[in-house]
Amino acid sequence: MKIAVFPGSFDPITRGHEELVLRAVEIFDKVIVAIGINSQKKYMFNLQERLSMLEDVFADFPMVEVTSYEGLTVDFCKKNQSRFLVRGIRNATDFDYESTIAYLNAEMGDGLQTVFLVCRPEFSHFSSTIVREIIKGGGDPSKFLPEGLNLD
Amino acid sequence: MKIAVFPGSFDPITRGHEELVLRAVEIFDKVIVAIGINSQKKYMFNLQERLSMLEDVFADFPMVEVTSYEGLTVDFCKKNQSRFLVRGIRNATDFDYESTIAYLNAEMGDGLQTVFLVCRPEFSHFSSTIVREIIKGGGDPSKFLPEGLNLD
Amino acid sequence: MKIAVFPGSFDPITRGHEELVLRAVEIFDKVIVAIGINSQKKYMFNLQERLSMLEDVFADFPMVEVTSYEGLTVDFCKKNQSRFLVRGIRNATDFDYESTIAYLNAEMGDGLQTVFLVCRPEFSHFSSTIVREIIKGGGDPSKFLPEGLNLD
Amino acid sequence: MKIAVFPGSFDPITRGHEELVLRAVEIFDKVIVAIGINSQKKYMFNLQERLSMLEDVFADFPMVEVTSYEGLTVDFCKKNQSRFLVRGIRNATDFDYESTIAYLNAEMGDGLQTVFLVCRPEFSHFSSTIVREIIKGGGDPSKFLPEGLNLD
Amino acid sequence: MKIAVFPGSFDPITRGHEELVLRAVEIFDKVIVAIGINSQKKYMFNLQERLSMLEDVFADFPMVEVTSYEGLTVDFCKKNQSRFLVRGIRNATDFDYESTIAYLNAEMGDGLQTVFLVCRPEFSHFSSTIVREIIKGGGDPSKFLPEGLNLD
Amino acid sequence: MKIAVFPGSFDPITRGHEELVLRAVEIFDKVIVAIGINSQKKYMFNLQERLSMLEDVFADFPMVEVTSYEGLTVDFCKKNQSRFLVRGIRNATDFDYESTIAYLNAEMGDGLQTVFLVCRPEFSHFSSTIVREIIKGGGDPSKFLPEGLNLD
Repeated sequence: MKIAVFPGSFDPITRGHEELVLRAVEIFDKVIVAIGINSQKKYMFNLQERLSMLEDVFADFPMVEVTSYEGLTVDFCKKNQSRFLVRGIRNATDFDYESTIAYLNAEMGDGLQTVFLVCRPEFSHFSSTIVREIIKGGGDPSKFLPEGLNLD
Repeated sequence: MKIAVFPGSFDPITRGHEELVLRAVEIFDKVIVAIGINSQKKYMFNLQERLSMLEDVFADFPMVEVTSYEGLTVDFCKKNQSRFLVRGIRNATDFDYESTIAYLNAEMGDGLQTVFLVCRPEFSHFSSTIVREIIKGGGDPSKFLPEGLNLD
Repeated sequence: MKIAVFPGSFDPITRGHEELVLRAVEIFDKVIVAIGINSQKKYMFNLQERLSMLEDVFADFPMVEVTSYEGLTVDFCKKNQSRFLVRGIRNATDFDYESTIAYLNAEMGDGLQTVFLVCRPEFSHFSSTIVREIIKGGGDPSKFLPEGLNLD
Repeated sequence: MKIAVFPGSFDPITRGHEELVLRAVEIFDKVIVAIGINSQKKYMFNLQERLSMLEDVFADFPMVEVTSYEGLTVDFCKKNQSRFLVRGIRNATDFDYESTIAYLNAEMGDGLQTVFLVCRPEFSHFSSTIVREIIKGGGDPSKFLPEGLNLD
Repeated sequence: MKIAVFPGSFDPITRGHEELVLRAVEIFDKVIVAIGINSQKKYMFNLQERLSMLEDVFADFPMVEVTSYEGLTVDFCKKNQSRFLVRGIRNATDFDYESTIAYLNAEMGDGLQTVFLVCRPEFSHFSSTIVREIIKGGGDPSKFLPEGLNLD
Repeated sequence: MKIAVFPGSFDPITRGHEELVLRAVEIFDKVIVAIGINSQKKYMFNLQERLSMLEDVFADFPMVEVTSYEGLTVDFCKKNQSRFLVRGIRNATDFDYESTIAYLNAEMGDGLQTVFLVCRPEFSHFSSTIVREIIKGGGDPSKFLPEGLNLD
C-alpha cells in the first residue's frame, strides 16, 4: 500500500488544499492529511478547529486520514510507513522554498520523496494567508473555502 | 473619471513609491495613496507621521489624494469608486507575491484590476525595509527618500 | 486622449490576449493592438491572417485599433502619440523578461511607460506557443482562442 | 494499475532523468518513458539511438516501458490509459515553464495530472543540453550520464 | 591586501557557510566572517556561542578572522578596509533578495562590491533555518553542520 | 597571481559588460575577457569585429587581456591557469541559468569557481540582445554601449 503524507498548517483549509488532497488520492492508496503542531506559531484557528474542518471536508473519503503530529515530518512519515510527501506549488517562489524542504526531508528520511502537485489555475493563488486576511478585514472568504465548509 | 488606489504601508515612503505614484498620475485622472491600517503590525513611523510625509511629498499634485483606511482594500476601492489598484514590482519574487494579491482583489472586488508598474531601474531596489534598516544602523537614508523629505 | 499600444506577434491571438486588451480598454481611451513585423522570424499565420483575426475579435470595440508596424516599438508609439505600452505577465520568468524590455523602452522612448496586467488565473497559462503546439499535434485549440474565432 | 508517462526528448538521457524515472517507479505501477517526436527539431542523437539508450538504462526494470510517439502528449496518454505525467523540475524557471504545460495538459486531457519530482541536489543541474555542449566541446560527459551508458 | 567581509547571523553555521568561506579564501587575501548583531531578532544560539562555533570551524585558517559588529554593514567594511562583501546564493528567490541588499550596500558604501558565490549543489539547500527546525523537532542536524562541530 | 576568465559572446559588448569587467579587475590580478567561438551560432558582428571592440574598450587596462577560444570553457581556463570564472547576473531567471553552468564548470573543471557579480542597477537590464534589436530596428544603441565605442 502506497501511503502519502500531506503536511500543513491548514489555518484554515482552502479549496486549493482540498483539490490537492483529492488529486493525491488518485495517485496513492492512502493520504494522511497531517497538521504539524508548532507551539511557537500563532494560529487563527486552534488545533481542534482545524482538525474538525479537515474531517468535515474529507468525511466521504475513506482513503483520507486526518491527524496531527509533533516533531519532525520525517519521523511522522516513518511511523506511518509513508515513503511520500505531497505538497502543492503555486509559483516559482513556492518552488524555491518547497524544493529546499524536499531535499531536507529526503536527506533526513532516507530518500523520503516529495511529490509536487499543482491545483487548477483558478485556485492556484488561494492560500490560508489570504483567507485569514479576508476574515480580519471583515470580508466573506467562502469562495476560497471547500464547498459547504462553515468557519463559524 | 478614472480613479486608482495605490495602497501600502509607506513606513516610510521612498523615492521608488514617489516615482510610481507620479507614473500612475499620468495614466489615471486621480490617484488615492492610501495607507492600510493593520493594528497587528508594528511600524517605525506612526500613522500620523506617515500621512504627513505623503501629504508633503504630493502637496503640489492636486490629482493625488492621501488618506488611510481600515478593512479590506476592495471595500475601500468600492467606497471610492475606484476600479483600479496600482502596485510597483521590483523583481520576480515581488511578482509572485503581488499577482496572488491581484487575483484575490479581482475575485473579491468584482473584477477590480491591478495595474503593475516598474520604477526606473536605479530606484528598483528601494524599499521601506531598506530605509528602516539604514535608520536603525545609524546611517543616512536620504538618497532613498523623496527629495526634500525630512524624517526628523 | 490616453492612447496605449499593445504590441505582440499574435500568432495567433489567444483568449488571454483578448482579455488583456479588454482590460486595457477600461484604463485607456484608445488601445492600438499592433503586430510587430520581424522578417527574421517564422510564423504559423501570415501577417494578413493575424491582422484579420485581430480585426474579427475586436470588431465591436471602436476604441481598439488593429495595425502592424516595422522598426522599433518606441518609434511606433511616438508616431501614434502613445505614451503607454501594455503587456501581460503570466509568471515570474515573464516578469524578468518583460521588465528588461520595459526599461529599454523607457530609455529609448523618453519615459515611455509600460503597464503590466495579468489576465484571470484560468487564462494565465494561455500562450500562442501552446496554441501552435496543439495545432501541430492535431488537437483542437478552441478553448484557448477568443470565442467565435475560427482559425481555418 | 496506475500508469505514468514520462515524456521527453532524451537527447541524450542523463543521470537526472534516470533518477527521476526510478523515483516514478516507486510511485506508479508502470512508467512509460516516451520520446516525443518533433520533426522540426534537430537532435544530436537520432530516434533509434535515443530509444536504444533508454532501453539499455532501464533493461532491468520490467515496470519501465520505453517507446516514442507522435502528436499530442494527451492523446498518447489516453491511448495508454495513463492519467499521470511525470516531469522533473530543477529550478524556479523550470517550474514556470512546466506548470504552463501541466495546465495545458490538464485542460486538453480531461484532468490529466502532472506529478513534479526533483532529483537529488547533486544531479539537479544535469541536463541534456549540458551533455551536448560537453560533447561538442570535446569533453567527457560520463559523469552526467547513467552509469555504464556508452554514447559511442 | 584584498579583504572581504562575509556577514551573517550564523545561527548556527552550516556546511554551506563553511564551504562558501573557504571558497572566498581562494579569492581574497583575508576573509572576515562577521556576525551582525541585531538586538531585535531572537536567536537559538547566543552571540558568544555563535562566535565560538565560527572560531572552531576556521581555527586552522589564519586568513579567516571571526568577529561581530553592530550598525550598518557598510560602516563595518569601511573600518576594516574591506571593499568586498561575500554572499552565498541558493536559488532565484535568494538572488532577488540578495541583489537588493547588494545594490543598497554599493550605494551606501561608495561602490562596495558584493561577490556572489554558490556552494556545491549537494549543500545548496542547507540553511541555518533548516538546522534550527531539525533541532526543534528533536532530530540530528549533524549532516548539515561543518564536520566535527558539536552544538551541545 | 589570481587570474579570472570572463567568457561571453560580446555581440556586441555593452556598458554592463564593461562595468562587470572593471569590477572583476578590482578583485583579481588579471582578467581574461574571452570570446567563446561557437560555429553553429550566428552573430551580428564577426569574431574580428568583436575582438576589436573589446580591445578598444579595455585598451587602458593592462590587467585585462582580450582573446577568443574554441572548445570547453574549463579547458580554456586550465590552459590559462585560471581558477575563476566571472559572470554577471541581471535577474532571477539569469541566476537559474548561470548557476547550472557554474555547477557544470565546477564539476568539469576540478572545482573551477564562478564568481557572480551584478552591475549597477541602471545598467542591469542592458544586454547584447537589446543592442542588436535596437540596431535592427534602426535605432541608436549608444546609451547601451561603452562610452566612445563606435559600431560602424
